[in-house]
Amino acid sequence: MSLSPTLELAKDLISRRSVTPDDAGCQELLMSRLAPLGFNGENLRFGKVDNLWARKGSDGPVLAFAGHTDVVPTGPEQNWAHAPFEPVIKDGYLYGRGAADMKGSLAAFITACERFVANCPEHRGSIALLITSDEEGPAKDGTVKVVETLEARNEKIDWCLIGEPSSTHQVGDVIKNGRRGSLHGYLTVHGVQGHVAYPHLAENPVHAVAPALDALANEFWDNGNDFFPPTTFQITRIESGTGSNVIPGECLVHFNFRYCTENSAESLEERVVAILDRHKLKYDLQWHLSGRPFLTDKGALVTASQEAIRTVTGRETELSTSGGTSDGRFIAPTGAQVLELGPLNATIHKIDECVKADDLDTLSEIYERILVDLLG
Amino acid sequence: MSLSPTLELAKDLISRRSVTPDDAGCQELLMSRLAPLGFNGENLRFGKVDNLWARKGSDGPVLAFAGHTDVVPTGPEQNWAHAPFEPVIKDGYLYGRGAADMKGSLAAFITACERFVANCPEHRGSIALLITSDEEGPAKDGTVKVVETLEARNEKIDWCLIGEPSSTHQVGDVIKNGRRGSLHGYLTVHGVQGHVAYPHLAENPVHAVAPALDALANEFWDNGNDFFPPTTFQITRIESGTGSNVIPGECLVHFNFRYCTENSAESLEERVVAILDRHKLKYDLQWHLSGRPFLTDKGALVTASQEAIRTVTGRETELSTSGGTSDGRFIAPTGAQVLELGPLNATIHKIDECVKADDLDTLSEIYERILVDLLG
Repeated sequence: MSLSPTLELAKDLISRRSVTPDDAGCQELLMSRLAPLGFNGENLRFGKVDNLWARKGSDGPVLAFAGHTDVVPTGPEQNWAHAPFEPVIKDGYLYGRGAADMKGSLAAFITACERFVANCPEHRGSIALLITSDEEGPAKDGTVKVVETLEARNEKIDWCLIGEPSSTHQVGDVIKNGRRGSLHGYLTVHGVQGHVAYPHLAENPVHAVAPALDALANEFWDNGNDFFPPTTFQITRIESGTGSNVIPGECLVHFNFRYCTENSAESLEERVVAILDRHKLKYDLQWHLSGRPFLTDKGALVTASQEAIRTVTGRETELSTSGGTSDGRFIAPTGAQVLELGPLNATIHKIDECVKADDLDTLSEIYERILVDLLG
Repeated sequence: MSLSPTLELAKDLISRRSVTPDDAGCQELLMSRLAPLGFNGENLRFGKVDNLWARKGSDGPVLAFAGHTDVVPTGPEQNWAHAPFEPVIKDGYLYGRGAADMKGSLAAFITACERFVANCPEHRGSIALLITSDEEGPAKDGTVKVVETLEARNEKIDWCLIGEPSSTHQVGDVIKNGRRGSLHGYLTVHGVQGHVAYPHLAENPVHAVAPALDALANEFWDNGNDFFPPTTFQITRIESGTGSNVIPGECLVHFNFRYCTENSAESLEERVVAILDRHKLKYDLQWHLSGRPFLTDKGALVTASQEAIRTVTGRETELSTSGGTSDGRFIAPTGAQVLELGPLNATIHKIDECVKADDLDTLSEIYERILVDLLG
């Protein structure tokens, strides 16, 4: 039985061991398919990261497909039922590292473009692909740098479709139209080290910080809003002392906020400081803002995507802003409408990662219809 | 100027690098002084630890001097004003590792015995020395094993004088007539690991344990009593998570009680469990009882010691049960009266450890007077 062009290309991509930040020739493969369609490709390499910016057309509006060729490590390969870089289709599923996150989507991007350009060679605006090999890693030399490059030359994306696996039970049932912000805090509470037999000569920083941590964990931050779930606070690390008979001298606490637009990084920082000060702690506090929240409200891209999903699958789509961060946080601040629409996320980052083979063809059709709607 | 026999012997002991568990020939040196007085010496070696049990006489009552030849490590020797194992006397102070803890006391034991036996060869009862080289270390093969050996052959100590540095401002101002108990707890709180973006799928053990730790730190355990200060609780270690975007799966907490006779290890364990259960934690909890509290109330040994200090120094002595654990915890349960009486503890375990040279001679006189009082 011959495979669809989307599945053939997905297998070809999966067979390349492109563990972050190694692109392993994936972008060259993609470009070899885009060049015949009239795309101009630029390899934008930053540090050890290959990025591809490919564009067909010079006018606006610009619809960009965004994604990544890098995959997360496999863990012990012997634990996989099928070798992670030897893609196979079995019982209707395509298995391999990156099948769902997100080489399947990349293949669907390409075949959608191929059919669209064949049917509509004189489309309006421009089609672009923004592909990085550093989404799963530090994300310092990937999409963020490409966006900076585009902004520096005033090149603008109007609509951005990210192929991240957004679907929950059936392909297209959920699309992500935004993400919460992510804010990290690094707290060091200072005490005075001493012998446990002489606590009056010491100050135990764990005793001091415990009620403050309880207050932070139970604080009502906000109630979320129509677009976002409520802000959450989680302690991700605590470390103090070495045991034996020593009262520790300091206590480290790391924590993270996933926050909605009812708060800002600044308001959260202020509120944390107020809680710590109320508990009369002596401390240092560092912050790292991993990404501000962003939202693509109703508009042409959302409408076109919902309509395309309805036409191809008959499904009504749920808009969601839940889940982890994505490269959308770098693209949204340019003013682009940003949506994530991809396959099911059930097996991502796991062993025996897989995707329903038919879903990739469905996805390719959905992408094609969005192209038709917006640029046809 | 010639030195007193006590100072000469103290210097000789300090010049031996007897870092735990190495005795470095100290006990042999002690025995070479005791044998001519009529002491029988036994080397009781357990594991890597040398212990000396030396006794003169076969009748009761038995007055034993107890102590240790091992010393704590020096840290970087270049930080010492005087090399730690090259004892010098300067401006009236004897410098060297072990000067205060407790080779000075060992020397004073010996010279006190020498003068006492010379003046009173036909004393009543027995004089003994119980010396280990594992007091500063794990204390598993030291005094505890010697005590077991003595108990097995029904050999009994009536009065035990430990040479630990008990004094605060002037030699003899404080003697320790007991110690608090020490109880260690090792707590593991179980949560459910997860991604910080999906806290509803996880259970953060740090959030769960924080209010319980606050409750433990603020619990009123007891008020102490006439002999002991109040029981204290201290967290000595907490560890959970690795940071990044992961909600930790468990949280380790180590803590220690120094407790008085108003509580018992059992009552404290029960009360901790009740507090943890009240906070609905899922946890494992291990206990290690390092030593039960012990107390030597008024009696012949306390009276003789107070009287000797008054006679030699003119000072009134304070009885105290504060401070860390000592080998007294192993001897007291046999029924012996146990007291700690030694030099000032200001410099113990520090660089440039030292003791006032005159204090060692004073101490030797005090020990001698106690011998006269109890066995003369």
